[in-house]
Amino acid sequence: MLNRYYSHKFAEIFLYVESLIQLLNKGINDYNTATQDYQTAEQQKYLMDLGGKRVRPLLALISCQMFGKDPEAALPAALAVEVFHNFSLVHDDIMDQAPMRRGKETVHQKWNPATAILTGDVMLVNAYELLLQLDNDVLKQSMELFSTTAIQVCDGQMLDMSFEDKAEVSINEYINMITLKTAVLLGCSLKLGAIVAQAPHTFANHLYHFGVKLGISFQLQDDILDVYAEGDAFGKQIGGDILANKKTFLLISAMEKATGEDKKLLDFWLTHPNPEPRDKVKAITELYNKLGIAAQAKNMMENYYNDAMDLLAAVEVNPEAKQPLYKLAQQLLNRNS
Amino acid sequence: MLNRYYSHKFAEIFLYVESLIQLLNKGINDYNTATQDYQTAEQQKYLMDLGGKRVRPLLALISCQMFGKDPEAALPAALAVEVFHNFSLVHDDIMDQAPMRRGKETVHQKWNPATAILTGDVMLVNAYELLLQLDNDVLKQSMELFSTTAIQVCDGQMLDMSFEDKAEVSINEYINMITLKTAVLLGCSLKLGAIVAQAPHTFANHLYHFGVKLGISFQLQDDILDVYAEGDAFGKQIGGDILANKKTFLLISAMEKATGEDKKLLDFWLTHPNPEPRDKVKAITELYNKLGIAAQAKNMMENYYNDAMDLLAAVEVNPEAKQPLYKLAQQLLNRNS
Repeated sequence: MLNRYYSHKFAEIFLYVESLIQLLNKGINDYNTATQDYQTAEQQKYLMDLGGKRVRPLLALISCQMFGKDPEAALPAALAVEVFHNFSLVHDDIMDQAPMRRGKETVHQKWNPATAILTGDVMLVNAYELLLQLDNDVLKQSMELFSTTAIQVCDGQMLDMSFEDKAEVSINEYINMITLKTAVLLGCSLKLGAIVAQAPHTFANHLYHFGVKLGISFQLQDDILDVYAEGDAFGKQIGGDILANKKTFLLISAMEKATGEDKKLLDFWLTHPNPEPRDKVKAITELYNKLGIAAQAKNMMENYYNDAMDLLAAVEVNPEAKQPLYKLAQQLLNRNS
Repeated sequence: MLNRYYSHKFAEIFLYVESLIQLLNKGINDYNTATQDYQTAEQQKYLMDLGGKRVRPLLALISCQMFGKDPEAALPAALAVEVFHNFSLVHDDIMDQAPMRRGKETVHQKWNPATAILTGDVMLVNAYELLLQLDNDVLKQSMELFSTTAIQVCDGQMLDMSFEDKAEVSINEYINMITLKTAVLLGCSLKLGAIVAQAPHTFANHLYHFGVKLGISFQLQDDILDVYAEGDAFGKQIGGDILANKKTFLLISAMEKATGEDKKLLDFWLTHPNPEPRDKVKAITELYNKLGIAAQAKNMMENYYNDAMDLLAAVEVNPEAKQPLYKLAQQLLNRNS
């Protein structure tokens, strides 16, 4: 889900971390070789080669390097989060019955659901096998963090699905869901790098929460861009969430705020069995404007972003070493303004 | 799958290990409490409470005790294999579209496939969380064995599914499949107990292979009993595998051996779109008899069983401590003779 954030202006951050990307690409190649005899090797390689921007493993490597440790030490952890992320995508796609991912057929679509389930299962085990390559003195702590995070991500997906059938979802419930489903894995990636580098606990935790806050901020931005992106900069259809009645921050907030005629109008479009897409997007966008939803979302997004920045600022390392993370965060907020 | 072996004469072995069963039950209760806040807690508890004979975790505890170590030290490993086993059941049941398990609705049937996928995913992570409770000096080795085994079990399931669409499966391929899908987890359970007890490597490996050979022997016995069980001692419909054209040892062997008229007859029944069940079971059973398939299967089963016994005999511990394993193995072969 996060990958779409980096479709446009991500080139610059990649220049900062080119050597880390090379390290990562080599690691992924080695991983594909190491797993080539598995019954699900073909599917696993297919997933890993779909690419994406590999933000999570990069965060782990950047974080490790920040604390003066050779980033190669964090490579197993970086690969573990990337493999775990792909595990979650292949299983989520089955659950969501998604036919496409990153412009290619999903595994359950190209093969079948049983194969997709097993591919994910094996990848989840592989993520642990990768972590087992870490040094003994950081192994247990890394695995505990990873396991806690993995369960949170599954819990987040379960909550996300439950929202579809739920008449009312609160803003707090929504923030909790995106925290679990998306944000904690960013925090985990960063903290794993810090653990491997044996960074002071305080700073490792700052980085964790920096990742979580940034992740929430990303997701809120995504909700906003679904409605307010300019032209094709967003890289997907404007109003897709609106047409799917997806309970984004915007819709949840509108459902809370709308009264009287506004509420009637909202209910009309949400329950319309066969709306004209353009009309529905236009009507709901106008309602969002009237209720000040976008401003509220943007405000919340900026609060999370600022919290993230404060946390990063409090990590006491060479300021230059933090530049990749600042760049990454800045590009998020500038991406369409 | 293994649980059905213990439906009838398993009471005696349980007397031998009553304290271990109490330890295990307490562990499962504690586990259910520890996981009660997860979004999939209800489904997970439902699965764990379905019971079964919990052979795998018992093997881990027995093995640890055999080497003079307090079996409680192996409880996290025992629970991990039980939780893993339940993970594999809940995912296999989705893949096999099985509506029932142990006389109750399967998770995907009672809830939905998405919930069943996530329940399994969380349980797989939980299995690792349990292993993380092991002592540091046995943690890594335990996790490596467990991970290797987990991937083998998934590979075995993938192979099993692939056999359905395969015109020809060799005996070797079949033995390999049941080894991966069923037998290695028994070996793993035993070896984990031995690792926790810091038993000599040779004996830990003997126990591993004892478990694998016994597992293969169990599965062959199961294939035989599908056709040759007496009365209702088997606890399921006679000829179920025959009616499903399931590629068991018997069918694979018959497909290899049958020529001329025998081959025509076999093909007739295998491709019959709507056979009278009794006639099909009778005809194929007669063909098995004619080709000496049962004797061949029984011979192979006994070879694996004898290999298992030799391996157990070579484990140098107090003979009394090995009794539970001998009992368990004996009851297997005596269960319907």
